[in-house]
Amino acid sequence: MKNVLVTIPVKESHRARIDEIAKDCCVLYVPAGQATEEQVADASVIIGNVPAKMIKASDKLELLQLESAGADPYLPAGVLSEKTVLCNSTGAYNRTVSEHAAALTLMLMKKLHLYRDQQRRNVWKDLLTAMSPAGSTVLVVGLGEIGLQYAKLMKAMGAYIIGVKRREGACPEGIDELVRTDEIDSVLPRADVVFSILPNTKQTVHFYTEERFHLMKESAVFINCGRGNAVEGSVLLKALQEGQIAAAAIDVTETEPLPAESPLWQQENLVITPHAAGTYHIPHTLECIVDIACENLSHWLKGEPFCNVVDMQTGYRR
Amino acid sequence: MKNVLVTIPVKESHRARIDEIAKDCCVLYVPAGQATEEQVADASVIIGNVPAKMIKASDKLELLQLESAGADPYLPAGVLSEKTVLCNSTGAYNRTVSEHAAALTLMLMKKLHLYRDQQRRNVWKDLLTAMSPAGSTVLVVGLGEIGLQYAKLMKAMGAYIIGVKRREGACPEGIDELVRTDEIDSVLPRADVVFSILPNTKQTVHFYTEERFHLMKESAVFINCGRGNAVEGSVLLKALQEGQIAAAAIDVTETEPLPAESPLWQQENLVITPHAAGTYHIPHTLECIVDIACENLSHWLKGEPFCNVVDMQTGYRR
Repeated sequence: MKNVLVTIPVKESHRARIDEIAKDCCVLYVPAGQATEEQVADASVIIGNVPAKMIKASDKLELLQLESAGADPYLPAGVLSEKTVLCNSTGAYNRTVSEHAAALTLMLMKKLHLYRDQQRRNVWKDLLTAMSPAGSTVLVVGLGEIGLQYAKLMKAMGAYIIGVKRREGACPEGIDELVRTDEIDSVLPRADVVFSILPNTKQTVHFYTEERFHLMKESAVFINCGRGNAVEGSVLLKALQEGQIAAAAIDVTETEPLPAESPLWQQENLVITPHAAGTYHIPHTLECIVDIACENLSHWLKGEPFCNVVDMQTGYRR
Repeated sequence: MKNVLVTIPVKESHRARIDEIAKDCCVLYVPAGQATEEQVADASVIIGNVPAKMIKASDKLELLQLESAGADPYLPAGVLSEKTVLCNSTGAYNRTVSEHAAALTLMLMKKLHLYRDQQRRNVWKDLLTAMSPAGSTVLVVGLGEIGLQYAKLMKAMGAYIIGVKRREGACPEGIDELVRTDEIDSVLPRADVVFSILPNTKQTVHFYTEERFHLMKESAVFINCGRGNAVEGSVLLKALQEGQIAAAAIDVTETEPLPAESPLWQQENLVITPHAAGTYHIPHTLECIVDIACENLSHWLKGEPFCNVVDMQTGYRR
């Protein structure tokens, strides 16, 4: 009897589904961080991000189903056996991240961060101007599923959407205009909102240079819910302090947690959330991960091809 | 030659439009608050909210086109002559108020007010749970144009909308379910979001009683962008302190500005904005007001019926 080790925070109903699918296996539910070396070594399937160093290229492990979209720790040689298929949970975070990003966008547009600051000082003061999503031009940099879902939300509020994508291709539904990433400088001056949801690749490190912030409108707002290393903290700080852009919101930073001594914290026109767009903040995310895991568990049992297989070169879904 | 007095903050393009329509009149542009008694007394048309006490029931005044939706100061006997038609700018604020309300809703759902507070203390701490508009049940209390537009925004994010309306009627497009205001207690327990955009009438004063907050879910959020007297500050404070609801956001208070000594200011799970949803925060609002004013100016010159005429009994558009 083969072992299935589950470390994601399943509910009763999820256990019932998994148990039913894997009824001929021994399914072990262990809270994240509590799996033993032995449990990992004995598992044919693992559902959840067990620490990479515990896997030790186990030959027994046939499927590692991650609960995350990112797979970085599992890519280096020696972590996984060649017999292990690595799958991620890309797609599960679309809703939570796109909603968080839309919330941050509206917060900046309506100056709710500044009103909150005033409130904490008992100050009733009208800040006079606000931005409107209706009629605004929104640049979505990174047109994966999250970018597309964010675009949909902003379009429903009346925004004009320019998508920015690595490779040329057909303009997806809901995107008004499409440019390649290497053409971004031509559209930055038109954007009222620049939303970055770039993945972490060699090409995206420090993508938002001082020159690029200079190309943006002084009235523009910048939102980053992708990877923190897309913009250096010092470059962003300068752009905000010198008024190259009006405001920014970031859910990710180059070093996480952001060190307490970082000058970014107290920059008034910057909003920081602690990588809180994703993970399990809304119940929907866990539902999606369980769906993916159940599908792949079933594929494994039937010897069918898996979904959400990670490309070991890029670290992203094939 | 008849006089037209304009006190709204028109731009050059607006002046050109008004001048063209009223080319046979003497059009005077005066910044708000700077019109003289004589200018008011000589005007056949006034576009803008001149102080009610300056009008003195002038017989010359044929049309008073307000820039506001509310008309309270102009309703009492003796303010306007019977010869004056009073028109408001209902409709002009739909976009700005519905967007501000949606921004406040997402802020509460994603706990962005609490993340902002943490930021000001240099604290990176995940607050773990968030709400999702998708799949949530949103009660829109007051189904005027603003309520309908807010409903449309929330529905685009996946919410289920229950509209609450004074009079029975057909369920408007975009509303999933309709109940009468006197039936609200039956749906309050189902709401994840209660959005109040009630007008100021005898029936709506202190509408949200302690009992009604008790009927709401402990996880519910309450947003008020209508009139401040729909809920007593002490009742709201108690609901928030005792956890009858999870959080609230108010753009209006019973006394405005909210006194500096009010305990509402420092209530952590309450967000306060200083009646900033409306007025001229986004350029679109002024465009709408100029549209209405130009239309009515034209109607006046041609002797046609006006649009947006105020019912002197209710204070709202007929």
